[in-house]
Amino acid sequence: MSETPESQAEFAEERRELLIAELREAIDSGAAKQVRGLLEAEHPADASDFLEQLSSERFEAVMDLLGGDLPADILIELREEYREDAVEVMSDEAVVEALDELETDDATAVLEDLDEDRRERILEELEPEDRAVLEASFEFDEDTAGRLMQREFLAAPEFWSVGQTIDYARENAEELPTDFYEIYVVDPTNRPLGYVLLSQLLRTKRDIPLAEIMETFHSDIHVDQDQEEVAYQFQKYALASAPVKDHDGRLVGMITVDDMVHVIQEENTEDLLALANVSSADGSDTVWESVKARAPWLGINLITAFIASAIIALFEGTLDRLVQLAILMPVVAALAGNAGSQGLAVAVRAIAEREMEGKAGRRAVIRETLTGIVNGVIFAIGVGLVAFFWFSDVKLAIVLAAAMLASFMWAGASGILVPLTLKRMGADPAVASSVFVLTLTDTMAFFSFLGLATLFLL
Amino acid sequence: MSETPESQAEFAEERRELLIAELREAIDSGAAKQVRGLLEAEHPADASDFLEQLSSERFEAVMDLLGGDLPADILIELREEYREDAVEVMSDEAVVEALDELETDDATAVLEDLDEDRRERILEELEPEDRAVLEASFEFDEDTAGRLMQREFLAAPEFWSVGQTIDYARENAEELPTDFYEIYVVDPTNRPLGYVLLSQLLRTKRDIPLAEIMETFHSDIHVDQDQEEVAYQFQKYALASAPVKDHDGRLVGMITVDDMVHVIQEENTEDLLALANVSSADGSDTVWESVKARAPWLGINLITAFIASAIIALFEGTLDRLVQLAILMPVVAALAGNAGSQGLAVAVRAIAEREMEGKAGRRAVIRETLTGIVNGVIFAIGVGLVAFFWFSDVKLAIVLAAAMLASFMWAGASGILVPLTLKRMGADPAVASSVFVLTLTDTMAFFSFLGLATLFLL
Repeated sequence: MSETPESQAEFAEERRELLIAELREAIDSGAAKQVRGLLEAEHPADASDFLEQLSSERFEAVMDLLGGDLPADILIELREEYREDAVEVMSDEAVVEALDELETDDATAVLEDLDEDRRERILEELEPEDRAVLEASFEFDEDTAGRLMQREFLAAPEFWSVGQTIDYARENAEELPTDFYEIYVVDPTNRPLGYVLLSQLLRTKRDIPLAEIMETFHSDIHVDQDQEEVAYQFQKYALASAPVKDHDGRLVGMITVDDMVHVIQEENTEDLLALANVSSADGSDTVWESVKARAPWLGINLITAFIASAIIALFEGTLDRLVQLAILMPVVAALAGNAGSQGLAVAVRAIAEREMEGKAGRRAVIRETLTGIVNGVIFAIGVGLVAFFWFSDVKLAIVLAAAMLASFMWAGASGILVPLTLKRMGADPAVASSVFVLTLTDTMAFFSFLGLATLFLL
Repeated sequence: MSETPESQAEFAEERRELLIAELREAIDSGAAKQVRGLLEAEHPADASDFLEQLSSERFEAVMDLLGGDLPADILIELREEYREDAVEVMSDEAVVEALDELETDDATAVLEDLDEDRRERILEELEPEDRAVLEASFEFDEDTAGRLMQREFLAAPEFWSVGQTIDYARENAEELPTDFYEIYVVDPTNRPLGYVLLSQLLRTKRDIPLAEIMETFHSDIHVDQDQEEVAYQFQKYALASAPVKDHDGRLVGMITVDDMVHVIQEENTEDLLALANVSSADGSDTVWESVKARAPWLGINLITAFIASAIIALFEGTLDRLVQLAILMPVVAALAGNAGSQGLAVAVRAIAEREMEGKAGRRAVIRETLTGIVNGVIFAIGVGLVAFFWFSDVKLAIVLAAAMLASFMWAGASGILVPLTLKRMGADPAVASSVFVLTLTDTMAFFSFLGLATLFLL
């Protein structure tokens, strides 16, 4: 029994591969029952993982074998592009059935995949009550709390006792969400007054009223709030779930932490990709999707790279007489560019974590500039020495070192000022920052190195 | 009541600034009672946020005013470096008192901040039982499930009924963790058999045995497991909490999702910073800490930049005769470097999200290379045209375009092959990748451009 984590991980991986192989075989031999059995025996998250490992032909074959009826809990676990494919081949009836089984937030996600015509048609087929709820979700913008929330939650008046609440839950078991972590205490106009954690409810005697054990809210989430702000509150207050209020402060929904984990990942990925000048990316992107997400940024870079070229061209005469400059100038640009990117990444993270507000922002600008100076001195000496031993030319080495120091200071300042300025202008500090910073450092590197060379070496 | 989200956010921000100003005033006038009152009136997460906004002098003044006794729930919410400062000025008695109030995972975090002598001394002061538990935590490596878990959870035998379980919780209310989401059903040797969600328990009749409503585990977490693997399971199975087993498969602890959200953020930040060649970063870093986290990478870059220089030096004769090459060669390097970074960022994200296993990895290599070719063709034409109009030289434009195409293909391939290779070697694919990729694209850019120029333009 005392296995190492590695051998357990290997074992899990082997099991996964065996099951996927078994699934492939079952698909190829058209064994519909076995395919369904294999998928339903696993956790929906695992079943969807298996499906995502299949070629698109086999994935279609699975949908055929299942008669276009993929279990709702597996459907919702599929990554968006697979889910879209699956929903496309499902009959309207199968989609309606799946929607019936899902909670509102998940049902909304499935409906989002449909084109408008089909969505309308399918909404028509739903029970009027369910339809109204789902239609309401679509009134909120994507990426807002209103779109993410589920309409199912447990609310109770403050005069209910613990016992009454438990009895109510037992009698209405069917209507409660599958999983929830707290009960919302509301006033007669349905405005939330506080919450009672289930773990608190559980340990409290039956006759105690909810009013006595409820706690006040720290989160404050409204239907129109951006998902990023919601995720921030979840992190800050370590929430498992939180109530969502409408414009009049009435309780209309609940958001759970699993959805927020997803949002946090999404926002992090967006930042990382934006810093690398990629608009969006997904493991299953086609070549064309990849090109579309990257070419516009490369186009901007095409312009900025020629700006740097134009700077070099200013010193054509100097370069013509001192070819060593052409050999060394990319060193200045590469190192200063790297220093700028470092500062930029730190700044973007700090802004995302809200560590840059007020005084902290000013402190950071000073720190980054000083860091640029310190690293600049270190690497000015470094490149100066290398250049001296390579070309045996003291003056060249000094010019290179001086240009390096200037470029590092500039890189340090622009690495932090560019994202802070973008943020102040209301733009996303991660998007476009790195093109700006690299252009600024490149032009400074070429200008200072070739400029100093023109002044002192000719 | 119907405010827009913007005005609400502004209102919250204004309130925060007012309270921080009030806190500053109270500190400066030495009003100890008011300081304590202000802090304790807020959620601990807000109180710690206020403290982090203070200058270090004022922060120390707060600790003085509180007589070195910061409430435990605020202490644990402070960012590590502030917590360290706070613990340093707290008396041993105050620390012991705080540890008593905290759950084991939080108490462990506080103890981690202490130097070994003081930690030993403080452990001595604890109740023998508490001490044993905390000492056990330190037997697990940092960043493992064993270190992250709390020892407080609710476990019950499978023959207990719902009613018995609720009665037990009521009678032992004091010993249960403040907040938990599920009950673990264990066999007589304390091995976990399944779990019952509190929301399930709540809606089930008193006389039903737990065995009948329990669900089987999908997560599989052991004390030695790395936190990244644990976080992956939380995301995959949308968990709010999960049990942790020791080497013999016995239930020893519980991990909750709020800790995992923290881990997910940490891992994401690590990736983003690693891609920008920063070892670690924090909003409150000093200049010296920033230099230490960045200089080693710049040192590596110093070497790789001179490798690129050496490539250029190979073509000194060519450059000497055609100075335009020096003007244009950074364009090839900048664009190809950007294309390589784009592919790299996409690959690092996909690896982190486990979207690169088996076939998906091979597909991605093909896609990235093809994306490199498509973007290569587009931007080869682009730079070729610009160069033609600038220098009115068809041959130069064609050589530049050909070098661009070659460099883009190379950038596409290395952007994905470098992180995949690092991963296969068991290294972190985000660390060191970008230095490798940029060096590979720089050398290829210079070599292909100057090489082709030597062959066709002289």
